[in-house]
Amino acid sequence: MTITLQDCRTRDTQDPLRSLRDHFALPPGVIYLDGNSLGVLPKAAPARIADVVQREWGTDLIKSWNTARWFDLPQRLGNQLAPLIGAGQDQVVCTDSTSINLYKVLSAALNIAREDSPARKRIVSERSNFPTDLYIAEGLCKERGLELVLVEPEEIAASLTSDVAVLMLTHVNYRTGAMHDMAAITAAAQAQGILCVWDLAHSAGAVPVDLLSANADFSIGCGYKYLNGGPGAPAFVWVNPRHANRFWQPLSGWWGHAAPFQFTPDYQPAPGITRYLCGTQPMISLSALQCGLDVFTAAQSLGGMAALRTKSLALTDLFIQLVEERCAGYGLGLATPREHAKRSSQVCLTRDEGAGVNGQGSGAYAIVQALIARGVIGDFRKGDGGKGPHKDILRFGFTPLYIGFEDVWNAVEHLRQVLESGEWQKPEFNQTHAVT
Amino acid sequence: MTITLQDCRTRDTQDPLRSLRDHFALPPGVIYLDGNSLGVLPKAAPARIADVVQREWGTDLIKSWNTARWFDLPQRLGNQLAPLIGAGQDQVVCTDSTSINLYKVLSAALNIAREDSPARKRIVSERSNFPTDLYIAEGLCKERGLELVLVEPEEIAASLTSDVAVLMLTHVNYRTGAMHDMAAITAAAQAQGILCVWDLAHSAGAVPVDLLSANADFSIGCGYKYLNGGPGAPAFVWVNPRHANRFWQPLSGWWGHAAPFQFTPDYQPAPGITRYLCGTQPMISLSALQCGLDVFTAAQSLGGMAALRTKSLALTDLFIQLVEERCAGYGLGLATPREHAKRSSQVCLTRDEGAGVNGQGSGAYAIVQALIARGVIGDFRKGDGGKGPHKDILRFGFTPLYIGFEDVWNAVEHLRQVLESGEWQKPEFNQTHAVT
Repeated sequence: MTITLQDCRTRDTQDPLRSLRDHFALPPGVIYLDGNSLGVLPKAAPARIADVVQREWGTDLIKSWNTARWFDLPQRLGNQLAPLIGAGQDQVVCTDSTSINLYKVLSAALNIAREDSPARKRIVSERSNFPTDLYIAEGLCKERGLELVLVEPEEIAASLTSDVAVLMLTHVNYRTGAMHDMAAITAAAQAQGILCVWDLAHSAGAVPVDLLSANADFSIGCGYKYLNGGPGAPAFVWVNPRHANRFWQPLSGWWGHAAPFQFTPDYQPAPGITRYLCGTQPMISLSALQCGLDVFTAAQSLGGMAALRTKSLALTDLFIQLVEERCAGYGLGLATPREHAKRSSQVCLTRDEGAGVNGQGSGAYAIVQALIARGVIGDFRKGDGGKGPHKDILRFGFTPLYIGFEDVWNAVEHLRQVLESGEWQKPEFNQTHAVT
Repeated sequence: MTITLQDCRTRDTQDPLRSLRDHFALPPGVIYLDGNSLGVLPKAAPARIADVVQREWGTDLIKSWNTARWFDLPQRLGNQLAPLIGAGQDQVVCTDSTSINLYKVLSAALNIAREDSPARKRIVSERSNFPTDLYIAEGLCKERGLELVLVEPEEIAASLTSDVAVLMLTHVNYRTGAMHDMAAITAAAQAQGILCVWDLAHSAGAVPVDLLSANADFSIGCGYKYLNGGPGAPAFVWVNPRHANRFWQPLSGWWGHAAPFQFTPDYQPAPGITRYLCGTQPMISLSALQCGLDVFTAAQSLGGMAALRTKSLALTDLFIQLVEERCAGYGLGLATPREHAKRSSQVCLTRDEGAGVNGQGSGAYAIVQALIARGVIGDFRKGDGGKGPHKDILRFGFTPLYIGFEDVWNAVEHLRQVLESGEWQKPEFNQTHAVT
């Protein structure tokens, strides 16, 4: 049966999570489907940040280390975040960037794996993993004489050989929204004596994650995507308690010291996850992250991540169905898995090479630009230009905290109009510039 | 001739930099002598930060990567900071923390020194260097099978042997305020084929620094002390252009890539200093740093760092003279050099062990607490308890941007009263707790 706008409105009125939308300052006239790139502003953030700036910094100055508890904010935020990723208390800290946290855990994982088994000289990852993860792994391999092996998803199982130290994967693929089975892959790797590092950049706050049940070894993730922590918000790092005290990580700064105010010349790592801290953190940005996490805390009483997952799948199911019903015949394909267990909270559409203006390119970039001009914010990820398996991608994130069913209807209606009218072919939408 | 309060007031009225104080929101009733730990709030910061939060994040969202120029903010701030440290344009980026930036440059310096001369296996530093610097060096040495050699300042020259790869020093000692002769030490080290890494945490914005004239190799520094960038503000990193393209640094994240939006699986470092970027930066905190730098830009027309240095020395001269005139006989000593060329912008006083309540400890901690209770904010740094050469320290920073001569008079008068009345001996000032 064909879905109508009225159906979507009815679903919004019946949505038990609808009130969560009121926690956010959504820009007027915008359907924001890019929360997987930069989450929106929580309404509580401006006042909270103003307080950090004017009272904590301006008035209280260094006293705020104690009175505002700056000193344990990375741990407090980590504890607030922990339930979203199936971590225990005192197992997570919010600090530094995703790339830097990856360097910490990958270094520690390599040290542990290679101490137990020095012949293991490989890191295995996916060729289409998020590039910065590969860059960090490449740097570590170069530095330590190890090898980074990149495979396709279907080759992962076969790549888990006895010379592999670490399997490093991103749980949700940034280009396609495809999601790995964390528990199964972790078990398969560990059966071969391989440690698993999971990047949750596109998972935390978007899909339920259970690091402890999956028995993962190390994990990191991003604060500014689905967690709505603000532009460049500090990231997070989790270490399985069985590894937490075993190695220090190489970015061994004062904040990870067992007695940071003793000012001893030698480094003694703090017990547990605190040793994954390094230098002084950007307190204003770190405090903003708390406003994002507070919305998830509020969501607990409405069913938490399980309820958010149910809504997320309903939103992405609806989007896929509406695109297929209403935008058929315009050369769009689906890059995201239909199977729920393999789908995250984003939907990625493809366009074939040659479908662009005058048969040049795919036109995907121009379609995204035309949608943005109408206030429907998604983003574009470039493919390999027909040289490989990766098509150009139109990427749409559906954050169940603030996206509604009518938003999905309206987004697809705009997409239909952009395609039907041919307005995407206008020159102004076909001028590439810095893509973010 | 004895100095009077009126003399100090006259000097304030004659101070050509007096107007700079109006750029800051100084807390009422406070004489803030801890700008070497956390700089004060620029008056422009609350509005600027609110605009970043509400417009750049809240309204413009991902468009701000282009419209608000988030993407080159680390370089723009680096260029704004460059004149304060004698660096050229496009040689500095503001990013990450001091500790993490030290890891980057120390790694690069080791790679360069050891490629040229593999037998060099030592890093030399000062035993009383800032601890986090030593922790980072210790971690790198452990990881790479190198040796960290710690010496006293007077032993540095003799330690520059042919097995040394890198000399890593902090320009201004955090405990004593003593300042190294950067040009002379750099020349002495380079004459032995040793590269020099300089930490400017207590120098940038406090004393004139000329990295290019000193021919330094690498440098890092802090954004939240004398630069007034806000709590935990991102730090900075400078690399001499002759080294900039020679090595990538190991924290090789996407923001240091030559083509970050191509999403290629392999890492190609950007040319020059941009390769010292790693992951996404905390934009709110990074934007706040600009407000701190803007005051230095405003100070250019009043004589810039040279004028600030003249005033800084006048302030610290005055403080030393007043303490010696008015607080004699209370067991205070001077840890900071009297010689201008060796003095930074802080003055550190000592108290002997046994001068505390009932002959326990030095009483320095309690004196600092009693001053803080009166609104005179300095800080305390613990010595070695009589076991070595380091006495307990009462540390006072004099930021010439906002501290005046009457402030110095009043601070010393409070110190005199605290000592004369014996109020520092009250139990509430003698209870140690977390010291920051």
